[in-house]
Amino acid sequence: MKIDVVKHVLDANDRIAMENRNLFDKTRTYVMNLMSSPGAGKTTLVEKTIEALRDKYAIAVIEGDVQSTCDADRIARLDIPVVQINTGGACHIDGSMVCEAFPSLDLEKTDLLIVENVGNLVCPAEFKVGENVKVMILSTPEGADKPSKYPLMFQESAVMIINKVDLIPHVDFDIEQARKDALVINKDLKIFEVSCKTSSGLSNWFQWLDDQIGSYKKSNQ
Amino acid sequence: MKIDVVKHVLDANDRIAMENRNLFDKTRTYVMNLMSSPGAGKTTLVEKTIEALRDKYAIAVIEGDVQSTCDADRIARLDIPVVQINTGGACHIDGSMVCEAFPSLDLEKTDLLIVENVGNLVCPAEFKVGENVKVMILSTPEGADKPSKYPLMFQESAVMIINKVDLIPHVDFDIEQARKDALVINKDLKIFEVSCKTSSGLSNWFQWLDDQIGSYKKSNQ
Repeated sequence: MKIDVVKHVLDANDRIAMENRNLFDKTRTYVMNLMSSPGAGKTTLVEKTIEALRDKYAIAVIEGDVQSTCDADRIARLDIPVVQINTGGACHIDGSMVCEAFPSLDLEKTDLLIVENVGNLVCPAEFKVGENVKVMILSTPEGADKPSKYPLMFQESAVMIINKVDLIPHVDFDIEQARKDALVINKDLKIFEVSCKTSSGLSNWFQWLDDQIGSYKKSNQ
Repeated sequence: MKIDVVKHVLDANDRIAMENRNLFDKTRTYVMNLMSSPGAGKTTLVEKTIEALRDKYAIAVIEGDVQSTCDADRIARLDIPVVQINTGGACHIDGSMVCEAFPSLDLEKTDLLIVENVGNLVCPAEFKVGENVKVMILSTPEGADKPSKYPLMFQESAVMIINKVDLIPHVDFDIEQARKDALVINKDLKIFEVSCKTSSGLSNWFQWLDDQIGSYKKSNQ
């Protein structure tokens, strides 16, 4: 008899993620699970998104890292509620880790909860946390072959943000190839081309996220 | 009673890695386990290293990827023996996966075996494969905070190759900070600063690897 440990783990995680989701619906909290390779620009995108939407929505952040509090410290400087999850050895955040952060958050007063995952293109895609949307960042120096090499990440995400477009003149990155390959894996993928450094393209992303939160709040009154 | 599944897995892996090591010593094969984030430049470094050392040593490559054969195809174009390991969902290569590649390799005729791991800064650092040396690449667009965020990778590796130094004028990367933080974690870490694109700094790396292979062959006659 083959005991499929991985599948059992994922089934258990799905149940916990659903319980998280039920709680988020009670508190009307829109949740984004943000994923990418290390150094693709997750924390900078979170900072810019907070700046853009903080006047309209109450925002909180869960920062996932193997170790360290670098990213949580950056968010705390913006005077935004932030909970650090240090996963120890684990290369991803799962539903129960997010659940453990709840006592440190005031979800009743949170419109948008951003969960910044551990930097990793593989396992984070497998573990739901109860989010409304999975968003992934592909940064141009990583190369355009990432959709074909890490397909689950592109399949599970609703949004791909192509970041660091300001570096395109200096790196080998075929943006049309990246778009095409990602859309073959997930034809409904919403794609934004941005530079978190120069802020180019970010307003489209802010508008889209604003619309999503608005629709969610409306449908969940 | 707490059953520590992860520890059991790692203990079992250590045993398999040691068996691999015994075989490599019999065939006098020097083995390098190459790790980094996705898109940091592993395959390009492998290509350049093959070009530099192929006249002196018989080289073979094991390519680890979740899916796809992009990287193995690149190596095969150099007319070098290459085995593709597709890990399925797994975010790292372990000892048994490397062991499974043996029937496809002629180790008796291999001086240098390069194992290119899955792009991931977390789990690959935990799993030995029977290598002589663990080498990790940090690329400048990822940022200088990676040693403090993924310390095990920098602790386990004997070598850190800082790649894409040609991009330093265009990215926020404090190379002295990266060096300093990595050396705090691992004071014996050997550091090379290179650009696989322009080939800057690569000759030092080739010379170091050449010396290591030479010493290994000498001490294992």
